[in-house]
Amino acid sequence: MKYSPLLDELIRELQVLPGVGPKSAQRMAFQLLERERPRGQRLARVLERALTEIGHCQQCRTFTENELCEICANPKRAQKRQLCIVESPADVAAIEQTHLYSGRYFVLMGHLSPLDGIGPRELGLDLLESRLQSEAYDEVILATNPTIEGDATAFFIANLARQAGVTVTRIAHGVPVGGELELVDGTTLSHSLAGRRPLE
Amino acid sequence: MKYSPLLDELIRELQVLPGVGPKSAQRMAFQLLERERPRGQRLARVLERALTEIGHCQQCRTFTENELCEICANPKRAQKRQLCIVESPADVAAIEQTHLYSGRYFVLMGHLSPLDGIGPRELGLDLLESRLQSEAYDEVILATNPTIEGDATAFFIANLARQAGVTVTRIAHGVPVGGELELVDGTTLSHSLAGRRPLE
Ligand SMILES: [Zn+2]
Ligand SMILES: [Zn+2]
Repeated sequence: MKYSPLLDELIRELQVLPGVGPKSAQRMAFQLLERERPRGQRLARVLERALTEIGHCQQCRTFTENELCEICANPKRAQKRQLCIVESPADVAAIEQTHLYSGRYFVLMGHLSPLDGIGPRELGLDLLESRLQSEAYDEVILATNPTIEGDATAFFIANLARQAGVTVTRIAHGVPVGGELELVDGTTLSHSLAGRRPLE
Repeated sequence: MKYSPLLDELIRELQVLPGVGPKSAQRMAFQLLERERPRGQRLARVLERALTEIGHCQQCRTFTENELCEICANPKRAQKRQLCIVESPADVAAIEQTHLYSGRYFVLMGHLSPLDGIGPRELGLDLLESRLQSEAYDEVILATNPTIEGDATAFFIANLARQAGVTVTRIAHGVPVGGELELVDGTTLSHSLAGRRPLE
């Protein structure tokens, strides 16, 4: 024990946050106690609520505290009959910022990774398959990351879409190969979206 | 708005933590939501409790959820009739790890810094003065950081102690000048404690 039991516990629990070790957890605890009690209390309450209330959108799987996310709940987004497949909610945010896309999304919350036990089921591909069968899409845009896993996942989903008779495109590789979609600048991502072409 | 209202709020509130910007707050929120909900809930509860219950020890001012910290509550620590003055609770922890000191502490929770409005009152020096007058100490050890502000604070406290008729020592400058006490290795800090000498 270095400090009081409760302070030791706080420093230990702060280390659940990614990138936070013992030294920075201690700095965080001291700063909150010394200078940021009201905002720290607010963080505690929001964290509690977020972890209780935020689940997944029943249509696209992104994070939301509602049954449907704002995009899925917006009937205008269905008019384009386009479905863009991404790996994470951050990718949706990045594509929205280009203002070049007004269709719907499907968020995999990851990519195929058999060694980690992440198969089609874990990515909700059964849900995707039934959406492709029951809803009338003109185009599925594959915007998974241009990595080995992202490409393999895109390939797998391309087959599902073709079985449902939907045209499949892949965003152009303006995105640096081996990179992460959410880290790319808006211009590159805009080019990448505009330059998409049918998957051979 | 980038995500759902509650997720946006969580990402914003996480940035109260020192060193956490929008990108790492987003990474933290996603990781908690995807993989660490039970531990995240525990963090929320501990944070709430800690910010409500942890105050300052009524004798030494360090952080504690009790009226007295463990050291002040331990009567054995009074026998040495020594009082060690440090800037922060982390400094107490560092000195305890040397196992060379078994007296009591007074934790300033900072140092004199008139430009920031931190004067003797903010450091609890009125409380320190009354302790020096009412309790029988043989030695006050000044272990503030060897910085300009730490030295000035030590000088100020040395006068209080002398007025109370208590011998004053300063830990030896084995601690690199301009450095921070809590970052020093145990050996250097041990030498520094052992080599303390009366303040001229
Ligand atoms: Zn949705
Ligand atoms: Zn105490």
